[in-house]
Amino acid sequence: MKTFTRVLLLMLVVFFFGCRTVTEEKEKPAITIEEVLHAQKQWCDALIEIGNVYVAGGDYHQVTDSIISLLYDYDHGQVIFKPTLAFGDQTFRLSKQGAVAYFAGSDPDFPDDKGFALRPWIAAEFENIGNDHEGIHLYGDKAIGAGHVHFTGADGGQVTVEKIFGYRKYDDGSVRIILHNSSLPYSP
Amino acid sequence: MKTFTRVLLLMLVVFFFGCRTVTEEKEKPAITIEEVLHAQKQWCDALIEIGNVYVAGGDYHQVTDSIISLLYDYDHGQVIFKPTLAFGDQTFRLSKQGAVAYFAGSDPDFPDDKGFALRPWIAAEFENIGNDHEGIHLYGDKAIGAGHVHFTGADGGQVTVEKIFGYRKYDDGSVRIILHNSSLPYSP
Amino acid sequence: MKTFTRVLLLMLVVFFFGCRTVTEEKEKPAITIEEVLHAQKQWCDALIEIGNVYVAGGDYHQVTDSIISLLYDYDHGQVIFKPTLAFGDQTFRLSKQGAVAYFAGSDPDFPDDKGFALRPWIAAEFENIGNDHEGIHLYGDKAIGAGHVHFTGADGGQVTVEKIFGYRKYDDGSVRIILHNSSLPYSP
Amino acid sequence: MKTFTRVLLLMLVVFFFGCRTVTEEKEKPAITIEEVLHAQKQWCDALIEIGNVYVAGGDYHQVTDSIISLLYDYDHGQVIFKPTLAFGDQTFRLSKQGAVAYFAGSDPDFPDDKGFALRPWIAAEFENIGNDHEGIHLYGDKAIGAGHVHFTGADGGQVTVEKIFGYRKYDDGSVRIILHNSSLPYSP
Repeated sequence: MKTFTRVLLLMLVVFFFGCRTVTEEKEKPAITIEEVLHAQKQWCDALIEIGNVYVAGGDYHQVTDSIISLLYDYDHGQVIFKPTLAFGDQTFRLSKQGAVAYFAGSDPDFPDDKGFALRPWIAAEFENIGNDHEGIHLYGDKAIGAGHVHFTGADGGQVTVEKIFGYRKYDDGSVRIILHNSSLPYSP
Repeated sequence: MKTFTRVLLLMLVVFFFGCRTVTEEKEKPAITIEEVLHAQKQWCDALIEIGNVYVAGGDYHQVTDSIISLLYDYDHGQVIFKPTLAFGDQTFRLSKQGAVAYFAGSDPDFPDDKGFALRPWIAAEFENIGNDHEGIHLYGDKAIGAGHVHFTGADGGQVTVEKIFGYRKYDDGSVRIILHNSSLPYSP
Repeated sequence: MKTFTRVLLLMLVVFFFGCRTVTEEKEKPAITIEEVLHAQKQWCDALIEIGNVYVAGGDYHQVTDSIISLLYDYDHGQVIFKPTLAFGDQTFRLSKQGAVAYFAGSDPDFPDDKGFALRPWIAAEFENIGNDHEGIHLYGDKAIGAGHVHFTGADGGQVTVEKIFGYRKYDDGSVRIILHNSSLPYSP
Repeated sequence: MKTFTRVLLLMLVVFFFGCRTVTEEKEKPAITIEEVLHAQKQWCDALIEIGNVYVAGGDYHQVTDSIISLLYDYDHGQVIFKPTLAFGDQTFRLSKQGAVAYFAGSDPDFPDDKGFALRPWIAAEFENIGNDHEGIHLYGDKAIGAGHVHFTGADGGQVTVEKIFGYRKYDDGSVRIILHNSSLPYSP
């Protein structure tokens, strides 16, 4: 009977630890607040970099394309992007082409896009809403965050827009934008 | 010893089936296109319902509160809501109070909210972007969808706004809004 | 005397809390394991992106320049970079120009650089050493991590190199490479 | 009441000076170029010392152990060490044992280590890259430096290797190695 009890206990141990193992294999890597903050900052840096390349006479269209590939999820998944100044049939950009056109312009398929990054901007700062990042909501491998971006143009002009970004973290550690809504503040 | 063997076998059975059960519990129910479409329609219906109650002299503030509880995830999780006509410090509404105030007005904490639902509206139609619902992106138990809502006021006026909704489906089958961005179309 | 005691206690409270505030203002944001993993992954993605642009006939030199600006700290601080295949006087690359030349080639100042990214590579995977990321050492706003990167060329060839990366996190959330050592494995 | 005022003043004095003290304690002592140069020189001297002890029939294994304790941060923190001639699973040495084995050999856990210091070497000189120590990057209490070490063996042979060292300075003034990468120059 002693042996019986031992085996019973062993089985219980195996049961709980075995199950835990199975369960953990299914858990996706969770995105963190820090990763969201970093992705926000990188988006701001990228916008300015495109403008720098433009001013320096570089191939800013190509640079934009590559940066969009790195920061947005177009090449690996799907993205909803509503740029600040897009409108009509081209309000939402579900394709990478539409995103590149918005930032870099010069795309005959998107004739209204002047190239948002080309103003150019010399500063862009993300301001999250609330305290303690309460406007960043984590959902396992996804995150949604809201706030404002304050842009400063090379011409000294300043613009503030409202932003909502959604991010997805992949098993390989990649964090990319799956949602980007930008709009001009409503003025009553 | 016979008893011992029986228990051993029983434990093994429990082990494998138990683990499978645990694992399956981790798989969250996936949200479907149909559920997103339903949630969009329900949001439109709810807006009109609030207006109906208002016109009929009912307790529209109470109704709004209940409807927000039903359709949004404020009571169970967290929500990012940027209403069309909100601005300044009150642009983003992370609390249910802020959402109710926007639709029903009369909240001293949100003095600029006139009560969006009280115009009232007699029709509201969600128009998804793209073909084959390509603007609705499913991510397991989450979904993000983009489009326009066309409102028709009791006064005959028509307004179109840009919408992005994010939804979360719970294990119990509930589908609620975790993200709602609304903005007036940009006019160049 | 009672008042005296009260003031004494108050001062002590102010003393400790006041000091704590002063102290906390000095703390820099700490880099996390997740941020290191993400930076590793992004480096791999960037290498492949440069090759993609090259194959597609795009301005890969410009893209490389912008990507180096985003991922390395050349524009904001200082970087030590020892590429795998660099040698002689040009073994270490302290300037951004030297880094761009290594990845994209075609720089008369770095005549031995063929453009490492142009092979091109179709896969690059970072393998950290040890268990539980024991090869990633965090030092507040800095981190050092060691491992191997396994490259797969478009020609099917496979190469593994030894990597040490150092990262710096800035107050604004930026995480950029300050150290990058790459070397071919020693073969006895 | 006079006593009260005196104590009040005293507390204020303590408050401001106390806070300043606390704050200054948080500022870690900055490492200097001179300390990095000294650490480089000491590493070279230590290598030769181990060889001297070996040739003289002394307990070189014990000496190596002590020197590693003095110069590297294994006992106090963590170290990434990639020796020149290490390979395979033992490429990176995160433990002190692995470092000692590399320099002194004779460790069954590291069967491929012949004892790098035992050749022996009669001269070792660190050559920093760039002018004005531009290859030594200081980050408060941390520093990273790159260069070459030129070894001369007792047999007259000469070897040059590429080095990157990372150092950490402790509050007590200690400066120890937290990173050491060594590799044979690439030969095209």
